[in-house]
Amino acid sequence: MANKGERTREQIVEKAAALFNQHGYHKASIADVMRATGLEKGGIYRHFSSKEELGLAAFRFAVEKMRQRFAEALLGKDGSRERLRAIVAVYARIPDDPPVPGGCPILNASTEADDSDPELRDEARRVMKSLSQALCGILRDGQKRGELRSDLELESTANVFIAGLEGAVMLSKLYGSSLPMRHVTAHLHGWIDSMLSSSGRR
Amino acid sequence: MANKGERTREQIVEKAAALFNQHGYHKASIADVMRATGLEKGGIYRHFSSKEELGLAAFRFAVEKMRQRFAEALLGKDGSRERLRAIVAVYARIPDDPPVPGGCPILNASTEADDSDPELRDEARRVMKSLSQALCGILRDGQKRGELRSDLELESTANVFIAGLEGAVMLSKLYGSSLPMRHVTAHLHGWIDSMLSSSGRR
Repeated sequence: MANKGERTREQIVEKAAALFNQHGYHKASIADVMRATGLEKGGIYRHFSSKEELGLAAFRFAVEKMRQRFAEALLGKDGSRERLRAIVAVYARIPDDPPVPGGCPILNASTEADDSDPELRDEARRVMKSLSQALCGILRDGQKRGELRSDLELESTANVFIAGLEGAVMLSKLYGSSLPMRHVTAHLHGWIDSMLSSSGRR
Repeated sequence: MANKGERTREQIVEKAAALFNQHGYHKASIADVMRATGLEKGGIYRHFSSKEELGLAAFRFAVEKMRQRFAEALLGKDGSRERLRAIVAVYARIPDDPPVPGGCPILNASTEADDSDPELRDEARRVMKSLSQALCGILRDGQKRGELRSDLELESTANVFIAGLEGAVMLSKLYGSSLPMRHVTAHLHGWIDSMLSSSGRR
């Protein structure tokens, strides 16, 4: 069981993740984290040497929430069609029920950090690469089992898939409406079906 | 011809647009704008009553650069296929040659502002809606002229299109590579062709 210090650290990270994911890693301040946690500044800096370190821990916390959702959604799904639809479903849930308040942590961190925060950008890049590789793995397995068409180019398919989903989160957040996400979800479902080989369609 | 005061104002807006689009509307400071323009703080606040007002002017400047690119790309393009490909081409250029440094201004402003800056978010929303309406107009014209399939749902098609393109900018910026954008471009070209009616294909 976690001791008191560990529990405090976890609470700081959880509150900071919600603040940073909504308001930005730069814009949300330590004063905001103090207000959200009820801790003094010293109580926060006992656990983190800098705001940047807290920012990275908060990003990793948010990403871990996404990872858990992917793992849950994929649990017990064997067919390629079901597995690809499970990835879509995790994203489709973000506008109305984000993993942490503020939408997709990878979209937020990478858009904020791409030109200005190399450490956070590199972390976001690693996370996005690992999502892309997981998707490529699902596609490759599907091809091996003959469920997906053998002419699918894996990296390109994964990029088109992820671009559509991240763009849908952006539009749904901007409009405050899940409609763009529903449009993209329906389109991707049709696209997934077009990837199926004749045996994958059975 | 613009007088000296107007030219100074334009220079401030142009420099600020590059700073805000790269580093964020909150993170980039008036000190950064002073450094980029060589002006004193008073020389900037003579033209703008607040950093927020400068931020909105800078966003509108960046959006106007995008609008000019759309207008140029569409000039002389009559067919639906060519017009839709022109929209894709404007986005495809962003990773290597952004309209202002920092990538797509709508993506950056809306991701930063969606949870934290209602005025900038509303402006980004208006701009995105007008892009979406322009795209719907191209699709509607194409249907009227019999070039595009009559069963295309306009708003949904526009959202899927824009989501893919914005997501592609995000991935290309994150990876520092135009490859994801090229993947999405190729996919959208194929999708555009699938929207053509038999007469649009001639």
